[in-house]
Amino acid sequence: MRILVVGASGTIGRPLCAELATRHEVIAAGRSGRDVAVDVTEAESIEQMYRRVGHVDACICVAASGALDHFADLTEAALLKNMRGKLFGQINLVLIGQRYLANNGSFTLTSGIFADEAWPRVTGGAVISGGLHSFVLSAAIELPRGLRINAVSPTMVADSAEEFGELFPGMKPVAMDSLIAAYVDCVEGSGTGTIVKAYG
Amino acid sequence: MRILVVGASGTIGRPLCAELATRHEVIAAGRSGRDVAVDVTEAESIEQMYRRVGHVDACICVAASGALDHFADLTEAALLKNMRGKLFGQINLVLIGQRYLANNGSFTLTSGIFADEAWPRVTGGAVISGGLHSFVLSAAIELPRGLRINAVSPTMVADSAEEFGELFPGMKPVAMDSLIAAYVDCVEGSGTGTIVKAYG
Ligand SMILES: NC(=O)c1ccc[n+]([C@@H]2O[C@H](COP(=O)([O-])OP(=O)(O)OC[C@H]3O[C@@H](n4cnc5c(N)ncnc54)[C@H](OP(=O)(O)O)[C@@H]3O)[C@@H](O)[C@H]2O)c1
Ligand SMILES: NC(=O)c1ccc[n+]([C@@H]2O[C@H](COP(=O)([O-])OP(=O)(O)OC[C@H]3O[C@@H](n4cnc5c(N)ncnc54)[C@H](OP(=O)(O)O)[C@@H]3O)[C@@H](O)[C@H]2O)c1
Repeated sequence: MRILVVGASGTIGRPLCAELATRHEVIAAGRSGRDVAVDVTEAESIEQMYRRVGHVDACICVAASGALDHFADLTEAALLKNMRGKLFGQINLVLIGQRYLANNGSFTLTSGIFADEAWPRVTGGAVISGGLHSFVLSAAIELPRGLRINAVSPTMVADSAEEFGELFPGMKPVAMDSLIAAYVDCVEGSGTGTIVKAYG
Repeated sequence: MRILVVGASGTIGRPLCAELATRHEVIAAGRSGRDVAVDVTEAESIEQMYRRVGHVDACICVAASGALDHFADLTEAALLKNMRGKLFGQINLVLIGQRYLANNGSFTLTSGIFADEAWPRVTGGAVISGGLHSFVLSAAIELPRGLRINAVSPTMVADSAEEFGELFPGMKPVAMDSLIAAYVDCVEGSGTGTIVKAYG
């Protein structure tokens, strides 16, 4: 398969691309993408990326991440800013990509555990991931030409535990290997409308 | 209790207010509200409403509703427009209301079945309701002063079956009585972070 990975240079993107490259052709994308540049916060940039890369069987998004928040003075503007990259960016990869992906191709998006489990200071992340899960259910029945869509919902990955662990005491990390396997299943399997909970 | 009902004149709001009024003091709100005017799409209007009404033990929102969409040409702008009323309006009722509600007061929001079950032409409604569910989980652990928050997630209510039934063939409606009971449980009970699925 020819697989477009948006966020290829990230903590999850790097090992994911390495694993996929053993069996597939990987196109690495990101703002400073090795193969193609894209800023998922701009619909026009997404459109250009798809035009440029040509045939794509699978699009995986492991780009972006969210800011922490303080509930006591959280505002609609702060939520919207948080949503631009992770929610609307991924939704646009699908809404625009539905016209470019090859027949029976697939989208695999990234949400996160805060959709289902509350932790302090991540209300924005929760709204984004909860919205993404319902988007995936809905898109699965709406997409044309046999296109599939799934989401992987990671908890904190072991490789990020040093950076984020102190913010989420008691959170059990998921091993990078298991997380990568979840993405591979979505791409190589035949499911659609599935939220794979990689919660460690 | 003194209960503020936003959307008091609607299909669900009317019978809900009638039931609550048998035991509580009801303040009816809406753009053309009987007791107080509010447009939930404007943060300043919400702030003014809370200032005007004084002591509130419970705030219930049964306002707004979403537009249908066509996935093939759905855009970020259309999703955002849909979100203004039902997602950001309700989130703002909580973010702003956390400074006004009485100690141990409660918020009860309204989402919808499309969060969990996909139907054609309601991707916007799905994203909104999925995001709301995760917002409620998160807010439940963040709210100060013993404030509680829950959501009621209705399927199509029997009273709306004539209006909407043709759009959703095969959808089993929920009786208005059961739906009203769900709202009353949220207000008079002691739960928080609960999504009450009134799916018929
Ligand atoms: N790491 C974790 O423990 C964890 C846990 C749960 C969920 N997640 C989620 O998994 C996803 C990836 O996480 P990560 O830790 O791998 O992130 P990361 O290390 O920060 O990498 C982010 C990647 O996305 C790209 N990117 C950032 N903004 C972009 C934009 N506007 N347009 C296009 N590409 C963009 C970056 O490359 P450029 O800078 O070149 O654009 C980079 O390749 C995020 O959605 C995150 O919330 C991560
Ligand atoms: N009816 C159903 O079968 C059903 C099923 C699932 C979910 N729901 C959800 O339940 C909620 C209520 O549904 P409904 O059928 O009762 O709606 P409805 O009959 O259309 O009533 C809407 C109410 O909200 C008020 N409202 C509308 N926009 C507002 C705004 N910007 N600011 C303040 N108030 C506003 C309206 O009064 P004014 O015009 O005076 O503002 C009216 O009181 C909606 O979120 C809907 O999506 C309904």
